[in-house]
Order: sequence, then structure tokens, then C-alpha cells
Amino acid sequence: MTPVDPSTDYSAQAQALVELGHEFHARGWVPATSGNFSARVDAGRIAITVSGRHKGKLTPDDIMLADLDGNSLSPGKRPSAETLLHTALYRLYPEVGGVLHTHSQASTVLSQTAAGWLMLQGYELLKIFEGIDTHETHVRIPIFPNDQDMTRLSTKVNDWIAEHGAIHAYLIAGHGLYTWARDVRQAGLQVEALEFMLECELLRRRTGS
Amino acid sequence: MTPVDPSTDYSAQAQALVELGHEFHARGWVPATSGNFSARVDAGRIAITVSGRHKGKLTPDDIMLADLDGNSLSPGKRPSAETLLHTALYRLYPEVGGVLHTHSQASTVLSQTAAGWLMLQGYELLKIFEGIDTHETHVRIPIFPNDQDMTRLSTKVNDWIAEHGAIHAYLIAGHGLYTWARDVRQAGLQVEALEFMLECELLRRRTGS
Amino acid sequence: MTPVDPSTDYSAQAQALVELGHEFHARGWVPATSGNFSARVDAGRIAITVSGRHKGKLTPDDIMLADLDGNSLSPGKRPSAETLLHTALYRLYPEVGGVLHTHSQASTVLSQTAAGWLMLQGYELLKIFEGIDTHETHVRIPIFPNDQDMTRLSTKVNDWIAEHGAIHAYLIAGHGLYTWARDVRQAGLQVEALEFMLECELLRRRTGS
Amino acid sequence: MTPVDPSTDYSAQAQALVELGHEFHARGWVPATSGNFSARVDAGRIAITVSGRHKGKLTPDDIMLADLDGNSLSPGKRPSAETLLHTALYRLYPEVGGVLHTHSQASTVLSQTAAGWLMLQGYELLKIFEGIDTHETHVRIPIFPNDQDMTRLSTKVNDWIAEHGAIHAYLIAGHGLYTWARDVRQAGLQVEALEFMLECELLRRRTGS
Repeated sequence: MTPVDPSTDYSAQAQALVELGHEFHARGWVPATSGNFSARVDAGRIAITVSGRHKGKLTPDDIMLADLDGNSLSPGKRPSAETLLHTALYRLYPEVGGVLHTHSQASTVLSQTAAGWLMLQGYELLKIFEGIDTHETHVRIPIFPNDQDMTRLSTKVNDWIAEHGAIHAYLIAGHGLYTWARDVRQAGLQVEALEFMLECELLRRRTGS
Repeated sequence: MTPVDPSTDYSAQAQALVELGHEFHARGWVPATSGNFSARVDAGRIAITVSGRHKGKLTPDDIMLADLDGNSLSPGKRPSAETLLHTALYRLYPEVGGVLHTHSQASTVLSQTAAGWLMLQGYELLKIFEGIDTHETHVRIPIFPNDQDMTRLSTKVNDWIAEHGAIHAYLIAGHGLYTWARDVRQAGLQVEALEFMLECELLRRRTGS
Repeated sequence: MTPVDPSTDYSAQAQALVELGHEFHARGWVPATSGNFSARVDAGRIAITVSGRHKGKLTPDDIMLADLDGNSLSPGKRPSAETLLHTALYRLYPEVGGVLHTHSQASTVLSQTAAGWLMLQGYELLKIFEGIDTHETHVRIPIFPNDQDMTRLSTKVNDWIAEHGAIHAYLIAGHGLYTWARDVRQAGLQVEALEFMLECELLRRRTGS
Repeated sequence: MTPVDPSTDYSAQAQALVELGHEFHARGWVPATSGNFSARVDAGRIAITVSGRHKGKLTPDDIMLADLDGNSLSPGKRPSAETLLHTALYRLYPEVGGVLHTHSQASTVLSQTAAGWLMLQGYELLKIFEGIDTHETHVRIPIFPNDQDMTRLSTKVNDWIAEHGAIHAYLIAGHGLYTWARDVRQAGLQVEALEFMLECELLRRRTGS
């Protein structure tokens, strides 16, 4: 596959990722150079944040093209070190159009102190997920041990899904949140809702209730 | 009743709701697409947020007209799923000009952990409510179980008021705060004061006092 | 004393109060219409916030002139209900040029749960107060019960100072913080430092240390 | 050494410090006039914040030149009272290009309640430090008692490093955080990462985990 010029669609996707970066950094969800965001451009390519960029200061130049093996399609640019976690989701779910990884205090602390998974229940905001139309349900968020080997980590995620069924999001211990959806806008709403519920979970633990 | 063109008054009301959306989202009180706001336009009609819109990015196009049965008067637009909770208050209180629903962490967590009602007392900010001119009082905020059936939920609210008397606000468990006043500005001040006092209540529980 | 036209000095003072209002509201220290700010214009007059205005939306029109008996010198405008707490300080301390009252969660919760006074010690930020050049000191912040009678409350403050000596600030239970200094800028720095130390005190109580 | 005109490089460094001041004040990390920032201009000179300035309102006029003995090279301007803590680091580490001191609630409270040092471990964000490429490590942050004598305090820091080896940052009790790096941008990223991890440590203590 030869490198491609950014399409109009790519430009719109890149702009959406830039705006999310500014918003999420202002909320404290992507400190320093943490976090990474991607959007599907077509069946085999994604727009993704360049490795090591500050999400609060993203410009379109900090977004690049990659294929679903995680190879750079933008000469001279290296994609996020965690690109394989993104591409694994795009491969697994052809309908997924956006994958977002944030690195908030709530997701960091909860993923370090809870074991195995976090169960969210009773929240009206659970309705943000497709297919959920009532608060009278629960959503399980698995927690994976952190790992610098992305192939091994993405295999663990795939294995978990194969065994337990589809999920909306997962946590990596001491590292943060991954969520995905049909497009970047919806994935962004899920980040807002998940970070809110994680902060509520922290507050509940702190009030002893 | 035939659909109507937005009046000048409607435009001012819509603009007031748009501005509250931006302010409240920046405070974290209406995450993702949560929250909904309305303002009375005349005896039988209200301006209300369109269903599913992001309150931090509201434009006048995200506000619509509805009647007091919750029917859309803006062709092609569907009002908030919780419109009946708004119209129930406009019907009950002819003097009410604005109804605001926020979805903060404090209101979510407190409504999940307290039972029956929350009692606010001793706060100077209680003077924000009409008819209260001293901190030496208490204000009871009933908490209703969450319900996806708005007719049933609004009936519960009406029944509670019929039995216990007028209130300034109520909570829905895991879902947030409703408050109302003679106009949108005053309702907005009540939201600020209530969210402040709810956060103080959370802090008091966390400090064990 | 006849009403006076705002002087150039008054305009600069009013502008300084407007800017503090915007900054402090953004920090959550003056929710709804709470808080009030003043600056000395000359020996017998102060600029002070008009009663009931939203501090996050202050304009110069929300600032007015008053004498040291708390009488309005701006026709048609009524000064803050707590003006007498301001004028008592200007009368007591001729060198005071600015008095600021904020209404934060930290000051509200601590003033409700601590008794008699709060002792701040060991903080580098204590050096913000004139005459303090080391962290190896302590600053006592008395806490007065809230009172809607401003004459009675300001008498209590004066009596306390007469008995215990000069102070830099005081708290009113469930109501907030008063601090004052030679000018509005310095008083504003004291608000920043005090709110910081009060939030630290809350954090220390919450961590059980 | 005679006073020098600011060079082009100096201007860029000064601008970088001004921008950090605005960002860090907005995050609550440099309340009132606390905090001070510096950048190396050449082997013997640094750009540093003028004593007593408000970091949220910094302009290039609030930055000045000093030599590595802490002497002012900008006529009429006095450098931060803590300049010697900066110059000690520039002397010790010739490769250091930026030193940043913040004064957050998390660093204040943790430095008052922990003893000797703070150990950060398991955080993905530890990878922000040069030479660290995995979360499976730990970083020790020594805590020094606060001291108004900067010569004595900087000697303590140097002695500690001589005994225990290189560090990335240290805390002063009740006073805040110092960190440094090859340039101001990298030092700023370390501040973001460290403040994040310190806040996580506070949250963990508050949740009893």
C-alpha cells in the first residue's frame, strides 16, 4: 500500500481529533503527552495522533495516517506507541469508526485499586451506550494489567472479549481508559460519560457508601 | 394548535438556554448529552432543548418549541425525553418561567446514597430561594427513584408535592437535579446555589463531620 | 454629603473589583449572587458591589459608591446587604484599601465543622500576609456564627479584635471568608492564598492526617 | 559581568515561561505569587521570574536575567527569593535547560504528611522521565523540610543527591515541587505528569487504598 494524500474525509477526522484533544486536556484527562485518539478513514486506514504529542496543543500536523497493521502511511511520522490497541479494535469491529484513550486520575486510581473489572450500575448515563435504554442495567469494564508490549496486551483484550462477549470500554491499570464507537463524536460522548461515572465511583468510595 | 414561528421572546429565551448550557457544561454539570433546560414562552408553550444534544455546544438550533402536553411545535424536532417533567411543573405552577435539569456528580452520588430526601440547613446560600431571608431554616430536597416512564415519574413528583407541600427542587437517583423559578435567570442562580450546597454536603460526608 | 460623580480613581477601583469578580467566580468562590467586594476611594467613601449581582458577570454598572455608614452615594443603587461588615473594617483600619468576601466550599464546610477558629501553620503561603516572612508561624482565623443582623455581627468582629488583637481574615459559619489589605490587589492575593490553605486543610482532614 | 541586552534566545525562553505561568495558574498550581520558573540562556546565565509576581498574569517584563550566583543582570529587578535553588541545579547539571517550581495543593499536603520521601510506582506516566521506558519501576521524590535560608536548603538538596544519586524532582514541605529537564518544554511535561501522580496519590489515600 502506497502512502496516500490526506482526503477531505481525513481532514475532517483529523480536525475532530484535534478538538477532542483540546477539550480533554482542559478537563485533565490527557496530562503531559498521555492519551491517543484515532478515527477510521476507510476500511484499511485510520487517522491517529502522532507519538508523544501534547494533546492540549494538537494541530492537524499532529495527526497522521496509519494502516491496520500500525504502519505509518505519513512519511516521517511515527504513530502512537499504542497504535496496535487501536487497530485491534478496528479489525475486530468493522463498524467502529473512532477509538479514544484517555488517562484521567479517576481511571488511573480505580484501575490500580479495583481487581479484574469495574461494574457500573444504576447510572442514567449508561444510556449513552448503543443498545442501552434504561438505567436498570449494568456495564462491566474489564481492567487489564499494564504492559509495554502492545501485541501481548491487545491479544489479552481480544481473548477477554472472545471469552466474555462484547464490551464498550476497558481500563489498563495505572494507565487509563479505552472506549470506541461508530464515530468519533459518539466515542467522545462515551468518554465524557465514562469519566463522569468513574469520578462518581471514586466519590462513592471516598464517602464510604 | 398549529406550529408557530419563533417570537422575539422565544429567541431571547432560547439564547438564555444556550448560554446556560455552555456555562453548566464547563462546570461539569451536564456531561455528554445529559441535562435539559426549558423556559416558558407563553401560557401554553415552552422553549426546550432538543433531545440528545450536547449542552456544551448548544446553538439556537438546538432549542425548540413544545406545548404543555410535550408535543413538538417545531417540525422535525423532538424535545428532550424528559419534557413531561418540565411541563408538569409549568402546569402545576403558572408563575414558573424556567425549569432546569442538571446531572452533576454531587447530585448523582448523593441521590444514590441518601434515602428519601436531603435536608439542606444552615447555609447562607439558602437565601437564593424566594421567600427565604435567613440561613436559620432548612430546605428539603426529595429524592425520587429513577424511572424511564416520564408519566409515572411526573405523577410521583406531583403526588409528593400534593402531600408534603411546595418544594424548590428535587433529585432523581443516579440522574440529577431539577429546579425551577419565575424565570430562567433565577432558576440558573438556584442551580449554582444547589450544586454548591450539594458539593458541600459531599465534602462534609468525606471529612466525617 | 451629596452624591458625587465617579472619579478617575473610582473607575480604576471599580474595574479592579469587576475583574476579581470574573476570576473568583471562575474558581467557584462566589456562586450565584454570593460574595461582595469593596475598595476605598478616599477617607470617607468606598466603591462596593451592588446588592444581588452575579459576580461572574459584573460590569462597572454593578459597582457603586457608599459612605462609611453604609449609605448609598449612587442614586438608585443599593449596596451589598453586608456593607456594614466592610465599613467596620475601613473605620477600624484607616490603612485598609480593599475588603473582599468570598463564599467558597472550603470556607463554608470548614466554618461549619471547626469551632471558634481555624489555625493555619507551616504553610509557605502564610508569607502572603504583611509582616510575615517565614512559614514557621501560625495565623489564627476566627469563625463567627452567621447572623442576618450586620450591626450585631460587625460588633462581634470588632469585640473579638479588641480582645485578641489584629487579624488578617475571618470566617462566618456556612457563609464564607472576609479578608482585607492595603489595596485590592493585595487583598486578592490573600484570597487566593487563604482559599488555597483552606482547601489544603480540607484535604488533610479527608486523608486523615 | 556587565548587564546584557536580552538576546533572541532569551526572548523565546521568557515567552515560554510566561505561557507556563498562565497555564499553571489556571490549573491552581501557582496560587497568589507562589511558584517560580527559569530557563538557561547560556552557560552562565538564566532567565527567571522576577520576585513576587503573579504567575497567572506574567508578561515578558516579569522575566529577568540572572547569573549562576543568583545576581541580577537586569537592572532594577530582583529575581525570585528562591533563585539559589534554581542555580544550584544549573550548576550541578550542565545539561539542564529548565527548572520549574510549582506550589499545588497536592504537593503541599503530601509533603506535610509523608515523611522523608514519596515513592511513585506503577504509573504509566513515569515514562515521562528521560531514561524510563516502562511503568514497572519506581521513582523516589525526596521531601525536604521548608527553610527560608536558600543557601542551607540548596546545600541539603546537593548533599542528598551526592548521597543517594540523581533525582528528577523534589518536594519542600508545605511549599511545593521542584523539577528540571533538558529544556523548559520537557520540564513542563514533568510538572504535568508529577502533579497528576501526586493528585492520584492523594486520591488513593482518601479512598483508603
